[in-house]
Amino acid sequence: MKYNKITPEILRTFQQIVGAQYVLTDKYDLEPYSHDETEDLEYYPEVAIKPNSTDQISQIMKICNDNMIPVTPRGAGTGLSGGALPIWGGVSLSLERMNRILEIDVDNMMVTVEAGVINKVMQDELEKVGLFYPVDPASKESCLIGGNVSENSGGPRALKYGVTKDYVYGLTIVLADGRILKLGGKTLKNVTGYNLTQLIVGSEGTLAIVTEIILKIIPKPRYRQTMLAPFDSLDKAAKALTRIFTNKIIPSAAEFIEKAAIKAAETKLEKKFPYSDSEALLLIELDGNYPQLLEEQAERIGEICLEGGAIDVYIAENEEKQAGLWDMRRKIGEAVKSIAPYKEEDTVVPRGQLPALVQKIKEISAKYNITTISYGHAGDGNIHCNIIKTDITEERWEKELPLVIAELFTEVVKLGGTISGEHGIGLVQKKYLHLALSETEIELMRQIKAIFDPNCILNPGKLLPD
Amino acid sequence: MKYNKITPEILRTFQQIVGAQYVLTDKYDLEPYSHDETEDLEYYPEVAIKPNSTDQISQIMKICNDNMIPVTPRGAGTGLSGGALPIWGGVSLSLERMNRILEIDVDNMMVTVEAGVINKVMQDELEKVGLFYPVDPASKESCLIGGNVSENSGGPRALKYGVTKDYVYGLTIVLADGRILKLGGKTLKNVTGYNLTQLIVGSEGTLAIVTEIILKIIPKPRYRQTMLAPFDSLDKAAKALTRIFTNKIIPSAAEFIEKAAIKAAETKLEKKFPYSDSEALLLIELDGNYPQLLEEQAERIGEICLEGGAIDVYIAENEEKQAGLWDMRRKIGEAVKSIAPYKEEDTVVPRGQLPALVQKIKEISAKYNITTISYGHAGDGNIHCNIIKTDITEERWEKELPLVIAELFTEVVKLGGTISGEHGIGLVQKKYLHLALSETEIELMRQIKAIFDPNCILNPGKLLPD
Repeated sequence: MKYNKITPEILRTFQQIVGAQYVLTDKYDLEPYSHDETEDLEYYPEVAIKPNSTDQISQIMKICNDNMIPVTPRGAGTGLSGGALPIWGGVSLSLERMNRILEIDVDNMMVTVEAGVINKVMQDELEKVGLFYPVDPASKESCLIGGNVSENSGGPRALKYGVTKDYVYGLTIVLADGRILKLGGKTLKNVTGYNLTQLIVGSEGTLAIVTEIILKIIPKPRYRQTMLAPFDSLDKAAKALTRIFTNKIIPSAAEFIEKAAIKAAETKLEKKFPYSDSEALLLIELDGNYPQLLEEQAERIGEICLEGGAIDVYIAENEEKQAGLWDMRRKIGEAVKSIAPYKEEDTVVPRGQLPALVQKIKEISAKYNITTISYGHAGDGNIHCNIIKTDITEERWEKELPLVIAELFTEVVKLGGTISGEHGIGLVQKKYLHLALSETEIELMRQIKAIFDPNCILNPGKLLPD
Repeated sequence: MKYNKITPEILRTFQQIVGAQYVLTDKYDLEPYSHDETEDLEYYPEVAIKPNSTDQISQIMKICNDNMIPVTPRGAGTGLSGGALPIWGGVSLSLERMNRILEIDVDNMMVTVEAGVINKVMQDELEKVGLFYPVDPASKESCLIGGNVSENSGGPRALKYGVTKDYVYGLTIVLADGRILKLGGKTLKNVTGYNLTQLIVGSEGTLAIVTEIILKIIPKPRYRQTMLAPFDSLDKAAKALTRIFTNKIIPSAAEFIEKAAIKAAETKLEKKFPYSDSEALLLIELDGNYPQLLEEQAERIGEICLEGGAIDVYIAENEEKQAGLWDMRRKIGEAVKSIAPYKEEDTVVPRGQLPALVQKIKEISAKYNITTISYGHAGDGNIHCNIIKTDITEERWEKELPLVIAELFTEVVKLGGTISGEHGIGLVQKKYLHLALSETEIELMRQIKAIFDPNCILNPGKLLPD
């Protein structure tokens, strides 16, 4: 790539646009911008800029585009595929200061936010007026809505409520050359031209910088039930889960946790967890406005689990216990990752193929004699499979890890699934993209990228294979 | 445009591909392919072809692309924006024979259909196994799922359940040059590259031919309530509706019908309709799995309507009465259109702006002294405004109609809305696209079109302004 370095003159212009204190260049100051939550990867930008408005971003982009300076947009850096890593140096463009909730429009049930609003902060504000934004990634306490949009984030409740894309109705974006564009709006229906809004959602910052977002919101369900069912085999747990859906019950969440993941969370949280000696847990949540209906459904789910071989069924009797179960679930990612070096794969298959996926993971694990720990959003068929570097040499890890991943992804695609359900392709999965998509499809994507970003300055080296 | 005519040799090739009886060339046989439901427009193709497989379509497209022959894909011809009109002649490519339901996958709650399956036929098959595809355009008894996908169709239930795009998870498409592509699949989550699936949905046959579709399905709600509230003013009806939502009740449908539309339906159906002398009706439906909850919600909606000035609130006491109300609603479009020549506008605004939109329509109607009749999916802010040619000269109609439309659309956009909610841009709205979208956005769309269809043979003259 023929990118240019940032000259002192360009640096001064950046400082004029956003204010000198928001242009960071010292290595110490740049350290937070050199990594995200993807393994132990580290790439330093030349400069981190913290603009405060769409207009400032527009000015910055124009300069970078004119001068062939790569720009990597950045939310909270909680991404798991390396999307925010400035692998070509240049500018790390942080949206963190654009953290205003611009409007909660109760009449239209739409919220307008800047890209830098923390997911949980917005959720809390909405709850104050009885409203609800259901998409809650595990990182909700720190991740930014802009990042959620760029990665099309999911989370446990996606099962009933869908993922980020299902809530994005309008966007303000800045194109690579600095032009500002408003897409969509507050209308619930819109067939006025191609759906560029949905083209931007999930495009991982490679097509445009998302600066403002209009999200649909819904009334908050009044009641919920959280339950836990331990099983003595992964297979039984996966099969019982499938049967919940064929019984036409749609829980608001249905998580699958394998024993090693529970044990890791126990160690991390220094807390004993119910049924942590069973091989697999299903964590199931129901929500709704009618407690009797929830109780009936919970009872039916309990029966299904017990018929399917559950050792027991535990219902969290109050909000504190519910919160405890979810706290454990949310900490699992971090806990598993603290065991040893790891590589996390965000596999997703059609829900009914979950038992087959669980089986395949174990087979591959045995074949390569490598440790895997799986957990995730089983109701969506979305399993986070962590490959852990325990008791094997660095040499074997380097040599065999790509083989293990390629074999896993090949099996996932055979099962009708794909290689990322909610973490994105980013840097670390792009070399596997051809396992999931045809050459024609990848070529169309390249051409779309070239329309939006002809100089390839926007998050270069991400999503598309080299 | 430098399109070529279809030579006898090419015609023979078409006949070899699909069978001679499925290649129509006689004017009499071509008549059904010369119009859709858009006003009285008529354009004859040179040939209508009825292929039976994705592979046949691939072969046809390759020939047309190589020979610069325009291709206009066609569903059931129920479109209201002229999308299926072969304005450049060439091939009318009818999907009508591709009418197989390929799979109802209960485990994954996904249905796979060919593009030529009738919406209602699929709905009925799903209902037999207790499943539900909620998107029901007024034309559901004849419209094809492929057409629904290409237009991103809505319908009354969009309010609670969303529109076609919200159910499309996978597509098989044929590109302009004949290449076959499978997009998405049965996974509920997918962030593996750009969302080309959603780029195709609503692209009105201008980017690719949709041949197979994977749709999400959901459990069928067990109960419903249908109610009717008459009002003595449009404004009161629109305001009461808004208050239903601020009370956090989401009906499964909330339709708005103005007096002249009801009267037209009465005449058409030769049937007296309840409260047909009131200025406006709200037709509201609730559904769910708990009858007590529905009754509570219906009661609350009744209170809200009466507080808001409803003359009465009528609850349909059985399924027959419910069906009667909906039959009336579905026939309104046809009835209004039988009064006189007309032009239908598919305006959509944020729901809370509905009273303002209704007011604006009346103001414009008065200013130009032209008749308008409005009805539609008020819960979505989606009002079908029919401009009717009564008592005015042909000359005034020709001269003033574009002014009326432009003024209406300008006001809609000012209210945060857009120029088509569910009918598409097609042929008849493309000259107004610039009122809703910026030059930059239209230019990006043109470039995307050029990627997918460099020779511009796919449904040319549609969606994008000339």
